[in-house]
Amino acid sequence: MNFKIQNLDKNSHARAGEISTDHGMIQTPIFMPVGTVGTVKAVHFNELKNDINAQIILGNTYHLYLRPGLDILKKAGGLHQFNTWNRPILTDSGGFQVYSLSDRRKITEEGATFQSHIDGSRHLFTPEYAMDIQRVIGGDFIMAFDECTPYPCDYNYAKKSMERTHRWLKRCIERFDSTDSLYGYEQTLLPIVQGSTYSDLRKQSAEFIASCDRPANAIGGLSVGEPNDEMYSITEEVCAILPHDKPRYLMGVGTPANILECIALGVDMFDCVMPTRNARNGQLFTAEGIINIKNAKWKEDFNPIDINCPAITSQTHSKAYLRHLFISDELLAYQIASIHNLSFYLWLVKEARQHIIEGDFLSWKNSLVPKLAQRL
Amino acid sequence: MNFKIQNLDKNSHARAGEISTDHGMIQTPIFMPVGTVGTVKAVHFNELKNDINAQIILGNTYHLYLRPGLDILKKAGGLHQFNTWNRPILTDSGGFQVYSLSDRRKITEEGATFQSHIDGSRHLFTPEYAMDIQRVIGGDFIMAFDECTPYPCDYNYAKKSMERTHRWLKRCIERFDSTDSLYGYEQTLLPIVQGSTYSDLRKQSAEFIASCDRPANAIGGLSVGEPNDEMYSITEEVCAILPHDKPRYLMGVGTPANILECIALGVDMFDCVMPTRNARNGQLFTAEGIINIKNAKWKEDFNPIDINCPAITSQTHSKAYLRHLFISDELLAYQIASIHNLSFYLWLVKEARQHIIEGDFLSWKNSLVPKLAQRL
Repeated sequence: MNFKIQNLDKNSHARAGEISTDHGMIQTPIFMPVGTVGTVKAVHFNELKNDINAQIILGNTYHLYLRPGLDILKKAGGLHQFNTWNRPILTDSGGFQVYSLSDRRKITEEGATFQSHIDGSRHLFTPEYAMDIQRVIGGDFIMAFDECTPYPCDYNYAKKSMERTHRWLKRCIERFDSTDSLYGYEQTLLPIVQGSTYSDLRKQSAEFIASCDRPANAIGGLSVGEPNDEMYSITEEVCAILPHDKPRYLMGVGTPANILECIALGVDMFDCVMPTRNARNGQLFTAEGIINIKNAKWKEDFNPIDINCPAITSQTHSKAYLRHLFISDELLAYQIASIHNLSFYLWLVKEARQHIIEGDFLSWKNSLVPKLAQRL
Repeated sequence: MNFKIQNLDKNSHARAGEISTDHGMIQTPIFMPVGTVGTVKAVHFNELKNDINAQIILGNTYHLYLRPGLDILKKAGGLHQFNTWNRPILTDSGGFQVYSLSDRRKITEEGATFQSHIDGSRHLFTPEYAMDIQRVIGGDFIMAFDECTPYPCDYNYAKKSMERTHRWLKRCIERFDSTDSLYGYEQTLLPIVQGSTYSDLRKQSAEFIASCDRPANAIGGLSVGEPNDEMYSITEEVCAILPHDKPRYLMGVGTPANILECIALGVDMFDCVMPTRNARNGQLFTAEGIINIKNAKWKEDFNPIDINCPAITSQTHSKAYLRHLFISDELLAYQIASIHNLSFYLWLVKEARQHIIEGDFLSWKNSLVPKLAQRL
């Protein structure tokens, strides 16, 4: 993996860059659609590639480990071969889902024991095993095994958890560095800054992560319910410590406004289930604000879903048609809405990049952000 | 509308033809995917056009009348404008759904009174109103309002119903011929042969329909539970009476084998929900037989879903991946399976056409039919 910064914004910490991987180039800042079990929910790969133009997608280790399972993924030759996505993939470490989805989880120094949310079977993820699993899945970027603390989080627990996450990181690095990619292309391990919303812990964690000197770094444990101001101040503090010349990935963030604000703070990579999950509930993001497409006000609006959005899908179909599909419980509703929202997110980061290059990012962002959360 | 027969098979009644409409050409024999409420279930229009290469789709009058309703369809400028499908559309008359879906239906000489399956509201479809509704929807082909009798059906009821359907047809024709298309392109009304499985009634009905001298004709009331032999013998008798030089549409048929057998009897147009409905249950049609993709035997089959099928989707994704999507309840499962099955049906009729042109249709059909129903 190689990261090249192409432009620095003079008025903020935003940067435009390029990450090269063995599965192709990623232009940053970038948003990565979430492909939970090897599919971006409700989106056909044709549209993901051509209409949305996703440059990299996520896979969730916890989900893929349970289904289809490591045996099948290994026999398939990794996730890229299994789902035919030949651009870059990033996998998380499973930690977040272990804590949020599974039952009877128990965290010890060794790792996390949990019961599958599907069949109740018992499993143990250790830092070492999280590396082994991600070697089998074969993402271009893989994540250290960490604990994502909830919000709010008791200071003492946040500290204890962060320290364990750091010890786990050392074990991840040791396993990662002593094993090889199974499929002949490079994988990059990203350590994760934790520390909840406590400034001193975040500083300590960011310094530790920076000292590990990996090619890219991540910030975890945000977008878990904390106010936006806390998200921004923590992100700002952490970005100031994480190496300038390496990509910074802010995990699980967020709303369109969150993304623009955090680009301004120096973040390069984002992922979030919001565009796809909200799409399935009929919530559409646009540069003018948020549309609840089920609302009766769109019943006879024969204008395109979003003429500003580059997706042909968004420009072709009318709001009235998409509303009709939702009211009629048609599967095409989820497809069109998901394609639109992802396309909008990809448009947003592409525009941000363009404005960073052109030098007017901050004023563009400041004029756009107030509109983004408006209810249309 | 214009119909041109290009080739006649020497060994059967099969024919290859071309229907020209104001929304483009249809090469026959053709299969028409069912687009119930203005969407072919689970299929994005990109794939419908490019991967499946559908030449014409159906719309269901009963469903479209209830949702989105005539007001919206009229304001949109018809169904083509509303759903952006710019190739031909055929709409049924609503009769079949009135009998199969709605509650408290009552048939009188005037028409059919029914309660909506959605909200219980009361409606009356008359032959005249069925024409008016289909003028508003704006299909290139529209169907006469008929009664589709169940199987088995008492002889006396079948006779009485057929005679009423004939009287209704006269009223349909009168209304149709005294009104104009609302959107500037031609619509063609198809009368429907009924008569259940009674040879003398079918003969009588076919002669009446033929005498109406409309540009195309349909056969209704089959594929409702009767044995295949009865379907074929009735179709054969009716095709022998319906004008040779006009397209023949066999409504609601059927399995891949049904379609090939009825092409041999002289049918030009087909529709059926089977490819899409069965796809959503994991049943895939191929030239080698039927695959239940949820079956554990496909778990590690990394071969394409169907290398023989022209859809890129079917050639790209593996059986193991599609099975994984079904097991994981992912929406992409329904998309891929529906695209595959429709693409297979379109491949089947295209191949049939090619073999009619090349002169070896009957031997090709006879070698293929026994395979089609095999369980793989």
